[in-house]
Amino acid sequence: MRSIEWKDGRVRMIDQRRLPHEYVMVEFDDYRGVAQAIQEMYIRGAPAIGAAAGYGLALAAARSGAKTREALLSDLEEAAETLRRTRPTASNLFWALERMLRKARDEGLEDVGQIQEALVAEAVAIAFEDVEINKRMGEHGAGLISDGDKILTHCNAGALATVDYGTALAPIRVAHTQGKRIHVYVDETRPRLQGARLTAWELMREGIPLTLIADNAAGYFIQAGKVDIILVGADRMAANGDVANKIGTYQLAVIAKENGVPFYAVVPTPTIDLSLPSGAQIPIEERDASEVTHIGGQRIAPQGVPVANPAFDITPYRYLTAIITEHGVIHPPLEEGLRKAVQASRMVGGAS
Amino acid sequence: MRSIEWKDGRVRMIDQRRLPHEYVMVEFDDYRGVAQAIQEMYIRGAPAIGAAAGYGLALAAARSGAKTREALLSDLEEAAETLRRTRPTASNLFWALERMLRKARDEGLEDVGQIQEALVAEAVAIAFEDVEINKRMGEHGAGLISDGDKILTHCNAGALATVDYGTALAPIRVAHTQGKRIHVYVDETRPRLQGARLTAWELMREGIPLTLIADNAAGYFIQAGKVDIILVGADRMAANGDVANKIGTYQLAVIAKENGVPFYAVVPTPTIDLSLPSGAQIPIEERDASEVTHIGGQRIAPQGVPVANPAFDITPYRYLTAIITEHGVIHPPLEEGLRKAVQASRMVGGAS
Repeated sequence: MRSIEWKDGRVRMIDQRRLPHEYVMVEFDDYRGVAQAIQEMYIRGAPAIGAAAGYGLALAAARSGAKTREALLSDLEEAAETLRRTRPTASNLFWALERMLRKARDEGLEDVGQIQEALVAEAVAIAFEDVEINKRMGEHGAGLISDGDKILTHCNAGALATVDYGTALAPIRVAHTQGKRIHVYVDETRPRLQGARLTAWELMREGIPLTLIADNAAGYFIQAGKVDIILVGADRMAANGDVANKIGTYQLAVIAKENGVPFYAVVPTPTIDLSLPSGAQIPIEERDASEVTHIGGQRIAPQGVPVANPAFDITPYRYLTAIITEHGVIHPPLEEGLRKAVQASRMVGGAS
Repeated sequence: MRSIEWKDGRVRMIDQRRLPHEYVMVEFDDYRGVAQAIQEMYIRGAPAIGAAAGYGLALAAARSGAKTREALLSDLEEAAETLRRTRPTASNLFWALERMLRKARDEGLEDVGQIQEALVAEAVAIAFEDVEINKRMGEHGAGLISDGDKILTHCNAGALATVDYGTALAPIRVAHTQGKRIHVYVDETRPRLQGARLTAWELMREGIPLTLIADNAAGYFIQAGKVDIILVGADRMAANGDVANKIGTYQLAVIAKENGVPFYAVVPTPTIDLSLPSGAQIPIEERDASEVTHIGGQRIAPQGVPVANPAFDITPYRYLTAIITEHGVIHPPLEEGLRKAVQASRMVGGAS
């Protein structure tokens, strides 16, 4: 299963808003459609958003009517700006656009056709690398999971949040494949219910034992000693290890610490933003009130009620037991380890 | 507004399941209907459940065809057993039934007619006392709220959770009436959304400024310094101050402690169960999986997903800044203060 792919010159993705009820693929042949799909959360999850942005820019290149290098670059800048404005928090969005634009400006590419071909290839490379990165994180992370462990996860950091395989779900998949008997507590993750709709669906497809719980019940099971390890994904991590992730992550981390349960963020290097010294600089997206007042089009709160709906929160680095990256598990002090991991990625390939 | 009342020999209550969309009163003339209404949460909240149980037993008495004292007492024992089995956690349910049965066995009551009349009067007294208790808690609690305070509350511990006025919402009402400029953050409170459906509705009716948030966002606002004080109700409090309350209360208390935000439980003495040394002995109700998998009859999670749905959790006493009772604010050490408060209630009236 790929959450997103390039097929016959178009971008194909699962419309995740309709899961678990319907599994529907949608196709786009205009980058604006991809931008809208990101904004409206057909596709979500930082790595998947990054891949979508890459493919969006590939579409912009492939469909551009530009005759000159300069005109094409100008079209691409415009498309990148549209894609950049879709969602403010996920690091991978900006990382992928930057990487695509750098490729477009590559002086080795001589004409419009070469740039167009190179950008499609670069977007495909970003997507393929994402899957490889996730598998490596899965291997590193599985070493932290013991036979019999009960694992709690928040939101969906699975195949659907990436191109495939997942971030926080990658170690869970690997541990399951290794024959470790694990059980996963899945937070439903209000307001958009990514846990109930997406993570539960992914785990059930693979036969990984799970229990779905309300977000409010996480503390109950942690307090009862029924959670051995917590794994979450990340939307952006600052240089000091502060991490923006789905709203509710911060409180889970606090409860984990209070109860001595190890808490890991699974973070591919494109999610690490070394330009920000701390989480205080990470922009937090505020989403529409209707996500809280309505479920499936049905109103659940009084008409006119004032709502606040931050989509992410910041978990300070001190709550993290360690960070799982594709280059290995980073233990505190985190700052140096994060810098080295990002450097290692730059040496390997096109990563930031 | 009364959540429940005795009218023309029947029990009338708001069907809270239909709020905030419809304000519908339902009437019962059989205690079995009242028992079902408690179980299916037409009425909920420990004090309101206690009042409903009292009225249920009054109905059982009034409608009994018994010709002798013994036959009536036997009918009442049977009715009490049915009512007792509706919900396991709320202390007030057992407290009210015990008080009603004690009244029924009163040797001063000579015949069936006298007992029937006395039981209706006792149920009405329980309901009236509840409102008085709440107003007193409101006065005591308002002293802890300063002008400009931002207050967070969980679930619904308002007029609807009691006969009127509320427990956790009582100090908020009084502070508002005193002219203090307050703002209330209301957790939506999955799975049954009592915050979004009931607390938001109550506060809007009274013009008290509020913001509705997902349960996951509570930590975000606490961490951001936007919450000055947290007030919650209680379903049962053990002798040491451990408190069972709506699922999610425990994790709120942990986050409050981590951030130095005072955390108060507002607890009328009928909710205090001195027979239990600690929260470990409080039974936690497990409710139907459909509360998590469905919202408003609409499925939100994959078919067949395993679910755990504990309705309450236990917050250990050490997380409580203080307890607000009708006899005043109890500061640690809590155990002695709780014992004195319950003793004071016994001296005042019929309370346990």
